[in-house]
Amino acid sequence: MAGGPPRQPLLLRILLGRPLANREYEARKIGPFEAVPAMGLDGLASSAYGPEAALSILAPLGAASLAFIGGVMGLIVGLLAILFVSYWQTIAAYPNNGGAYIVSKENLGANASLLAAAALMIDYVLNVAVGISAGVAALVSAVPQLFPLTLPLCLAILGLITVANLRGTMDAGRFFALPTYLFVASFVGIIALGAARAIASSGHPTPVVAPPSLGPSAESASLWLLARAFASGCTAMTGVEAVSNGMTAFRQPHVRNGHVTLALIVGALATLLIGVAYLATAYHVGAMDQTKAGYRSVLSQLAAAVVGRGPAYFVAMASALAVLALSANTSFVDFPRLCRMVAEDGFLPAPFAAAGRRLVFSVGILYLAGAAALLLIVFGGVTDRLIPLFAIGAFLTFTLSQTGMVFHWRRALGDKRAGGRISQRAHLAINAVGGASTGLSLVVIVVAKFVEGAWITVLVIPAVILLLKRIGAYYQGLARSLAHDPPLDLRDTRPPILLVAIEDWNKVSEQALELALSLSPEVIAIHLTELTGPEAEAEDDRLQADWRAKVEAPARDAGFEPPKLMVLMAEYRTLHRPVLKVAEDLCARFPGRRVAVLLPRLAQRRWYEYLLHAHRADRLRAELLKRAADVTLIEAPWRR
Amino acid sequence: MAGGPPRQPLLLRILLGRPLANREYEARKIGPFEAVPAMGLDGLASSAYGPEAALSILAPLGAASLAFIGGVMGLIVGLLAILFVSYWQTIAAYPNNGGAYIVSKENLGANASLLAAAALMIDYVLNVAVGISAGVAALVSAVPQLFPLTLPLCLAILGLITVANLRGTMDAGRFFALPTYLFVASFVGIIALGAARAIASSGHPTPVVAPPSLGPSAESASLWLLARAFASGCTAMTGVEAVSNGMTAFRQPHVRNGHVTLALIVGALATLLIGVAYLATAYHVGAMDQTKAGYRSVLSQLAAAVVGRGPAYFVAMASALAVLALSANTSFVDFPRLCRMVAEDGFLPAPFAAAGRRLVFSVGILYLAGAAALLLIVFGGVTDRLIPLFAIGAFLTFTLSQTGMVFHWRRALGDKRAGGRISQRAHLAINAVGGASTGLSLVVIVVAKFVEGAWITVLVIPAVILLLKRIGAYYQGLARSLAHDPPLDLRDTRPPILLVAIEDWNKVSEQALELALSLSPEVIAIHLTELTGPEAEAEDDRLQADWRAKVEAPARDAGFEPPKLMVLMAEYRTLHRPVLKVAEDLCARFPGRRVAVLLPRLAQRRWYEYLLHAHRADRLRAELLKRAADVTLIEAPWRR
Repeated sequence: MAGGPPRQPLLLRILLGRPLANREYEARKIGPFEAVPAMGLDGLASSAYGPEAALSILAPLGAASLAFIGGVMGLIVGLLAILFVSYWQTIAAYPNNGGAYIVSKENLGANASLLAAAALMIDYVLNVAVGISAGVAALVSAVPQLFPLTLPLCLAILGLITVANLRGTMDAGRFFALPTYLFVASFVGIIALGAARAIASSGHPTPVVAPPSLGPSAESASLWLLARAFASGCTAMTGVEAVSNGMTAFRQPHVRNGHVTLALIVGALATLLIGVAYLATAYHVGAMDQTKAGYRSVLSQLAAAVVGRGPAYFVAMASALAVLALSANTSFVDFPRLCRMVAEDGFLPAPFAAAGRRLVFSVGILYLAGAAALLLIVFGGVTDRLIPLFAIGAFLTFTLSQTGMVFHWRRALGDKRAGGRISQRAHLAINAVGGASTGLSLVVIVVAKFVEGAWITVLVIPAVILLLKRIGAYYQGLARSLAHDPPLDLRDTRPPILLVAIEDWNKVSEQALELALSLSPEVIAIHLTELTGPEAEAEDDRLQADWRAKVEAPARDAGFEPPKLMVLMAEYRTLHRPVLKVAEDLCARFPGRRVAVLLPRLAQRRWYEYLLHAHRADRLRAELLKRAADVTLIEAPWRR
Repeated sequence: MAGGPPRQPLLLRILLGRPLANREYEARKIGPFEAVPAMGLDGLASSAYGPEAALSILAPLGAASLAFIGGVMGLIVGLLAILFVSYWQTIAAYPNNGGAYIVSKENLGANASLLAAAALMIDYVLNVAVGISAGVAALVSAVPQLFPLTLPLCLAILGLITVANLRGTMDAGRFFALPTYLFVASFVGIIALGAARAIASSGHPTPVVAPPSLGPSAESASLWLLARAFASGCTAMTGVEAVSNGMTAFRQPHVRNGHVTLALIVGALATLLIGVAYLATAYHVGAMDQTKAGYRSVLSQLAAAVVGRGPAYFVAMASALAVLALSANTSFVDFPRLCRMVAEDGFLPAPFAAAGRRLVFSVGILYLAGAAALLLIVFGGVTDRLIPLFAIGAFLTFTLSQTGMVFHWRRALGDKRAGGRISQRAHLAINAVGGASTGLSLVVIVVAKFVEGAWITVLVIPAVILLLKRIGAYYQGLARSLAHDPPLDLRDTRPPILLVAIEDWNKVSEQALELALSLSPEVIAIHLTELTGPEAEAEDDRLQADWRAKVEAPARDAGFEPPKLMVLMAEYRTLHRPVLKVAEDLCARFPGRRVAVLLPRLAQRRWYEYLLHAHRADRLRAELLKRAADVTLIEAPWRR
């Protein structure tokens, strides 16, 4: 029986699948096919809102905005290319886990790693809330009847993603493969078709469904406006670090699998960003005002302009909507793995490092789901106001990770034995450029979004770091006080003085006394009474007479010191106080002796039996554990 | 420290007062001053809706309804008089508790007593929900702006009454004394003034504010209509049994205190019922349609007719509203005391019989509050539809109680030794008349209200009885299997084989092993690992080397059999399965030997420490308690 997998409630089994054994760990690792949906949804979904975010900032320029979007998106794709190369190197250098946390820890020290951890953790939680609510907002704007269901829909999608990830990263990757690949295929197709028509018509294609015409310029372009457009468009880059943070999920050869996955995600993302920027210019598509009726997203306008409002349009838009709503999955893959590493370093509670029934870190998954659900509920499923808080965490970790890699290569260069100094210099240069550009972008983003809410992130990150440090200090203190080098000390092995709680003379107390006398020759039975006056005396006399006949006499006959029976008044009906008093008196009277309390109890077999008993033993145990200095507890369950 | 009252959280102390000692039990008992509000609110509130309920049924008769209301109310007050005398006798005959449950149990047997218990319990729950929602409905009709707050207001009043009663019956009686006595004084005053004016004007007084004129007769009076009016008016009588059910609350001389309380409640109630009926006739006040705008209750019309809409009117109506809303208090006094008796007889879970921190039966109070809250929430705070279910329980228990008393006096008459046979015959006759009239009324009520919902009560009562019997059977079965007459058997006092769960060599495991070796010479340490492959082997070697040096050598030196260390694979990361397997193997290999599992654990001192640990010991303990047949558990808490 104890050999097979543990039995579990049926519902859990259906929802989460059978429990997995430790030896199945390798078989549960994933390749690029599952990794692109599992880790890439965040990045790919960025293509749906990144260009739109930049165009929204440029909207006051009217038709002139299209003159700048190419430049802004070009800058962003350039930065993306730098990040791609940097993370490619990081994955090769840290094949077991190339996340910002590890890279910072190894190269920049504990404080930098905690900064990375705090930024990433906040970013992941925000990503879940914002991603799901953006997806639901898109759905609700397409089907306005669903508006009253905004929050329930958000929570249902959160529940779906949570369950999929509790089943394991492999399951999540497979579940979400269809919408992911459908989205990429649809929009790559639309872009190819649109670009072909644009080129064929020398840059002046005729839209199938014409986008609304763009208004005249309300203001002229300023550097500040362009900087803000860049900062907003940078949200398109969040999710690029996901592969490096989730390296432990890959099967062998994991560097290669990581590289392929990274290349596929970044390749698809870059294609989509460039394509959208090009087609927007060619087809004169700008951002519409979301707050006005008749709003349609940039992707929707583009798709309609290229393929019209036929079935292809609806398939593409449905997949875009699914990708947006499921973009939270990336957080669910990386957050638990990050928390596991932080917990193993002693900066988060130990349960974050424990593998659950499906070999994923269930505590992290549930914590992420809980935190995101709280945000969704507090904001009623509309998390627009959280978006400004969002990109900071991502760019902070980009910068930390790149800077860490610069130190990594410098150390490698300093190591005289190692060869390949030219390639290491090249690596260093690439990471330095990456770090400098993401650092610069971070400054732009913080400045551009500070008033809109970025200041909250700037405050919350130090608070989280403080919390992580407090947890670390607790575990370090605990380890110091637990440390014990000397061998076992067996100078005093006198058995403890045993107190046995007795309710009446019955099978339970008989079994408890047998056990007590087998453990220690010094046994004191205690009976607690709430009665007062003549009732109490009659009860007391009856019990004492029973005790003499049923316990003291046979104990004496068997050569034992007869156990005494003490009757204690439970004046306030709390059981633990009189018992504690007796234990304290004994400790004072016999210094150095251990005192143990034996609690006989009925073993409850069925749930309803819990309702039928007062759980005196459970309550006494809980109170003694909380208050008693050095009392050992012995529980003797009795079964009918 | 262990001598004084236990320390408790501050909030609990402010809300519920200091914990009371058993010896304070007598001091917490009440006299008539507290008992009239505590037990009488239900009965007194009846005067606000009883006559109105009868007039509502008669409303189709228009002005002619007033010709019949005197007769109907006369019949009801006559029945009330019979009940008064009957309960007076019951209190004297059963001075410790004269409730229908005890009287039925002693005279009619267990089945009748369970019928009484079921009827009373349902009635008490309904009374709470209906009373509170009626009070809030009256408040909302006076201040329509509060309408959206109906349910929160209901729950707030329920909370207030619950807390007052958790503090004790004495506190509840004192809290609610002001509205109760104000209500009685106001309306007795209004009735006296109105009656004086009516008599002075030869039965044709001029109202200060004229009530709306009554319409012409829409139909003629039938016996069926009068029967229904009587059945509806009978709701005015619920609450009369409250004193007999709550006798344990009275201080000495408790029969006298019970009699005074009963007389005060019934006297006030009868005065109000007769007065309202008389003034309604004299001032031509009928029931208005509650569903129409401009509705005013009979009491409101009467008060306005006699004293106008001045301050006196508002004081009277405010007290009537408070009495209605607080009428639930009667249930809170009696329900927990009833449940206590039923639990002591083994037909309800034992916790119902345990006195709480304020010496009242807190479990019953909380259960009543929970059940009433559920009803209020399900019905959204409007429980009109529950009213037809209501009077059945009361009249069923009236009938059972009277019938029981008939048997009581018959037995007394059969007892040759006892004197006073004439007075006993008189008692018997009174209870027989009481039983017959309440039984007849019960039939009228069931028939008149069957379709409106009384059928639900008729179905629910047997279901509750079945539940009580199942609980009784469980406790009887348990008592049989616990019963043990033979003396202590000490033929086998070999100590158990001890399994000690070890995580690593540290102070916790050192202390656990010392304890283990002091309890039994046969100790086996078990270490659970989730690791596989080379990692596991390295870890295993390190631990085994530590074990040989730190445990086996010193144990051998001290003359002990060195404890073995077993490393077990926790393949599915559940700890209990490998431990259970070892325990089962040992039980099979050494039949008759006890096996104990020693769980070393950190004692957690602060709440946040609970969040920082995985609670492996707690989870292992819970699983072993649930599954292991005969394993003793030893917990050794370790404190820094």
